[in-house]
Amino acid sequence: MLNFNYYNPTRILFGKGEHTRIGSHLKNVSKVLIVYGGGSALKNGTLSRVQSSLEAEGIEYFTIGGVRPNPTLEFAEKVKNIAVDSGLDCLLAVGGGSVIDTCKVAAAWAKYDGDAWDFFTKGLKIEKALPIATVLTLPAAGSEQSMRVVINHNDLKLGTASEKIRPMISVVDPELFFTLPKNQIAAGVVDMISHIFERYFTNTEHTDFISSQAEAAIRTAMIYGPKLMENPKDYDAWCQVAMVGSWAHNGYYGLGQVEDWACHAMEHELSAYDPKITHGAGLAVITPAWLRFVSNVNPSRMQRFASEIMGKETIEEGINALCDFYKAMGMPSRLSEFGLTKEALEVCAKSACERTGMIGQFKKLTSEEVLSIYQSVH
Amino acid sequence: MLNFNYYNPTRILFGKGEHTRIGSHLKNVSKVLIVYGGGSALKNGTLSRVQSSLEAEGIEYFTIGGVRPNPTLEFAEKVKNIAVDSGLDCLLAVGGGSVIDTCKVAAAWAKYDGDAWDFFTKGLKIEKALPIATVLTLPAAGSEQSMRVVINHNDLKLGTASEKIRPMISVVDPELFFTLPKNQIAAGVVDMISHIFERYFTNTEHTDFISSQAEAAIRTAMIYGPKLMENPKDYDAWCQVAMVGSWAHNGYYGLGQVEDWACHAMEHELSAYDPKITHGAGLAVITPAWLRFVSNVNPSRMQRFASEIMGKETIEEGINALCDFYKAMGMPSRLSEFGLTKEALEVCAKSACERTGMIGQFKKLTSEEVLSIYQSVH
Repeated sequence: MLNFNYYNPTRILFGKGEHTRIGSHLKNVSKVLIVYGGGSALKNGTLSRVQSSLEAEGIEYFTIGGVRPNPTLEFAEKVKNIAVDSGLDCLLAVGGGSVIDTCKVAAAWAKYDGDAWDFFTKGLKIEKALPIATVLTLPAAGSEQSMRVVINHNDLKLGTASEKIRPMISVVDPELFFTLPKNQIAAGVVDMISHIFERYFTNTEHTDFISSQAEAAIRTAMIYGPKLMENPKDYDAWCQVAMVGSWAHNGYYGLGQVEDWACHAMEHELSAYDPKITHGAGLAVITPAWLRFVSNVNPSRMQRFASEIMGKETIEEGINALCDFYKAMGMPSRLSEFGLTKEALEVCAKSACERTGMIGQFKKLTSEEVLSIYQSVH
Repeated sequence: MLNFNYYNPTRILFGKGEHTRIGSHLKNVSKVLIVYGGGSALKNGTLSRVQSSLEAEGIEYFTIGGVRPNPTLEFAEKVKNIAVDSGLDCLLAVGGGSVIDTCKVAAAWAKYDGDAWDFFTKGLKIEKALPIATVLTLPAAGSEQSMRVVINHNDLKLGTASEKIRPMISVVDPELFFTLPKNQIAAGVVDMISHIFERYFTNTEHTDFISSQAEAAIRTAMIYGPKLMENPKDYDAWCQVAMVGSWAHNGYYGLGQVEDWACHAMEHELSAYDPKITHGAGLAVITPAWLRFVSNVNPSRMQRFASEIMGKETIEEGINALCDFYKAMGMPSRLSEFGLTKEALEVCAKSACERTGMIGQFKKLTSEEVLSIYQSVH
């Protein structure tokens, strides 16, 4: 196991009704910008309940809606400008990963004189940020408790990480998820499982505690994800899935080990190429292809995946069972289903490795290998 | 599942050599009191390495040694007086749970004008405390990451909890555990497992995510604890056990559910009655007796314990397997082995329920029931 330095000060308010009490937890906050997405938070009343909660505490607020999936640096700049011009002391994201990540970029940008794109392209560290609070409306990205952020700009989808952008407080209220469409539920479950896979597939040895925690979490998601596909209003199932999602990306399942992240990098290229591709759906296609490609890299780890997570005897059976799970969740199994052409895959494979030469850690992949993986599931 | 509000801002520095770098992580700290125990930290050089690390950062420090197992309010008062008189801005515990808990009491007391015993007997909330840092030398109590504290006074051993006394930073450096005597290793492993049991045995339903995390953690401790009994210098085994110990008591395994704590309460009476009784050794005797006493309360939870944790078919087999595990760790199985008389047990049973009427939540126990449990393993 490797040494680690872990710091996760996000306060989690979990359970039904918690979003109506967010105001009472925003101590020392007087002026907030509420950021939201495409309007469902507005239509279904979540936004107005959050606003009432702020009003009850005498907290002044502004609102801005319109963050889209695969959010852009341009929108984050808008948010940053309002934050700076109005002297705000907190950004409150009401939404999923796209809204939260927009706030993370804006929060860091508000404390930085240059262009926030520097954080993603020049290795510049985020040293300061406005406090961020979140009311989660889509459990998937795990951004509500993570130090990571991903943003789109100039046909690139890039990420970075900093302790300074972990939300100070996040509401995870499963009743807010009851109205999610099934394809979003499924993509969310795939994404959270992937966040654990990206950490679980490691060549670091002696990680048994964290590995067995990770296995238990993935098994939980695989039991309760399908229950949500049957009944999206199953509160008890949502509790389990939402907790997996929130812990999946807070760093816990990667403590003391090298993480991989090749599948996320490969998928981000696809979503950057065509923003209509849902991240989780892309991951459902990419992950089994990647697993097949790396299946000889570390046989004991692959075998452990097969037996402890999938309950199968062989690696091949384990990967097939994972495909069956994705299929049962209504996920695609071929990149052509997204309308991606062979030429598009070449562009994405080249772009994937353009900045860093190779991607991944479990096995470092060249752009030729990335292309092979894409092509194997075209 | 129940709603919860979880906040755990303790920074964990984990791994070999980390204790030599503690100074560099104590930002904004200029004057520290190092608190330690019986002298092993002094003799084996841990203390001087910690001091060097502070000196390298220009941090001024004082030291006070002499905290004993089952630490007292009186000693905490000494620490508090030095902290207040010298205008310290941080307490640095170098030790196990006793040293850390002494610092927690002193840290809260330094910000309170009355008697700190009020926090334990009058339900007074700890609203403020000096920052606490820790360098763990004995993984067992989990106090390095917990909001709980236990202290002895007037033949009572009482506890309380507050977010304000979670350490701001804790070093968990497994190489510091290599010189621990085997009986302390064993008692530590029993204690950390108990911290998870106290949460795992709940009547709250729909806790599958946390329950399966808890099961995986206990299984890890049961695999790696015995390896340490064979070789106390097994770094890789210590990594697993130390992580179980630190996460066991930080609140994670109790999220969203009612916790029990009857075994801890029953054992605290014994250790308060005779401070020579090691907490973990007491728990190894009490826990199976309690399990037998409550085995009909919630058969599905008990069955889950037997199959998922102990790998056995029946509840009885599960409890027997737990006894075998404790025995293999060299733990006692009878209270008479501590020299406790029947009369002593009567005193302890009465005292256990004196303040609250009943103890425990999985099944609320009267003092007569506590006595039956004690007597069943006398």
